[in-house]
Amino acid sequence: MRWARIETADGPRYGIVEGDSIATVEGSPFDGHAPTGERVALDAARFLPPVVPPTFYAAGLNYPEHAVAAANKRGEVPSLPETADIGYRAVNALTGHRQPIVIPADATERVQYEAELVAVIGRTARNIREDEVRGHLLGYTIGNDVSERHWQAHDRTLWRAKNTDSFAPMGPWIDTEFDPAGTETIVRLNGEETIRFATDSMIFSVETFIARMSRYLTLAPGDVVWMGTEGAGPNMKHGDLCEIEIAGLGTLSNPVIREGM
Amino acid sequence: MRWARIETADGPRYGIVEGDSIATVEGSPFDGHAPTGERVALDAARFLPPVVPPTFYAAGLNYPEHAVAAANKRGEVPSLPETADIGYRAVNALTGHRQPIVIPADATERVQYEAELVAVIGRTARNIREDEVRGHLLGYTIGNDVSERHWQAHDRTLWRAKNTDSFAPMGPWIDTEFDPAGTETIVRLNGEETIRFATDSMIFSVETFIARMSRYLTLAPGDVVWMGTEGAGPNMKHGDLCEIEIAGLGTLSNPVIREGM
Repeated sequence: MRWARIETADGPRYGIVEGDSIATVEGSPFDGHAPTGERVALDAARFLPPVVPPTFYAAGLNYPEHAVAAANKRGEVPSLPETADIGYRAVNALTGHRQPIVIPADATERVQYEAELVAVIGRTARNIREDEVRGHLLGYTIGNDVSERHWQAHDRTLWRAKNTDSFAPMGPWIDTEFDPAGTETIVRLNGEETIRFATDSMIFSVETFIARMSRYLTLAPGDVVWMGTEGAGPNMKHGDLCEIEIAGLGTLSNPVIREGM
Repeated sequence: MRWARIETADGPRYGIVEGDSIATVEGSPFDGHAPTGERVALDAARFLPPVVPPTFYAAGLNYPEHAVAAANKRGEVPSLPETADIGYRAVNALTGHRQPIVIPADATERVQYEAELVAVIGRTARNIREDEVRGHLLGYTIGNDVSERHWQAHDRTLWRAKNTDSFAPMGPWIDTEFDPAGTETIVRLNGEETIRFATDSMIFSVETFIARMSRYLTLAPGDVVWMGTEGAGPNMKHGDLCEIEIAGLGTLSNPVIREGM
């Protein structure tokens, strides 16, 4: 089942994707729902982030080539993370499928995508084992961890490098049956493929991260865990279209604009 | 006016502190409220965090002696932050006035308080000037940024050092008229004063932080900005009581327990 969240005349609504339309519901996949009887064509839908998480977790460095590239940029000897230490992003940065990524006027040219698998928590999780993690997920979606590399290197935190409004597109939907094993993540910039990698070639798996997190903290329904990205992307500029496909899950597509252009 | 949030037989409720009781309301200070006609004695109230923020911001290093002490601990030459770069904490860590700080069984002895002024956003803020910030605040409360120093120094992120469940007590209430200018922050551990500092001796003011943040991101009603702490605290252990007073605002009081004791 695929859960989208869209803007309607009655406000934000969850809906189930069926063929080329979305059957909207009252309620949510997290705490019960009933059909409204209304349908919205996929083509006409205004997609919202499929969930606004209570806490927005992000793995950061979690694929080998990306970790090495990041260390090289900092002039450091590459070393892979030794433990699954989760990081954070902020909900103000979220935007939906097809909504624009808006680059601030004073950002440098070095604004880049990061294609990420996103795990969505479905049931409260505290002190769970790795083999119990899948049973606590609602499913998976796709994230684009847009990053301004100058701010990322020079600010004391990632506040505007990665959390500027619109720098966290997420969607198009949450797929409740998706399994990342054996799938590929593909990025296309203006229709041209720029990277392709094995979605499951992570340093630490979804299960490893979430079981470890749950030893110290309570994961809540709707929390999201962005799993990191591979490689290093080209710059994105005003007028570009960035598409992230995870095969079998969907494609998250966002145009890029620069303020004042 | 002082807004508390408490657990009642009808679930979480906001209420207005009047003398030695809380007059509960339906709704919230952010989007309208009506009195329920019921009152709860302050002594009997079960306090919740006065707000669960959409985004939980934290200034980190923002007082001169704390910044120097932190640099010394890392063996670095002390240098004060040159720009107001905001950081983040996570809502799972929040707990209320009088609720216990629970130290995980495998934490070291080096668990310490950090007494902080907290600004609470009342109205959506984007691209506002410093002189417009106060008009976008609902008011102020108090936070205790509990920190496990070994994890803080050795993990790649602050995930369990500062975001373990219960490591972010906040309260007791939001004061809508409080002005930090000229006030003192005082911490007492087991009744004994351990530090006292000028609340407004921050490196960057509330106004500087929030105006700068609003150039890149939208602050939402209920967002909180923890403003950092001064000095370096002693360790807290099982059985301790940590009280943080900001004169004119209130006292946030939390017992400390260690898992398995």
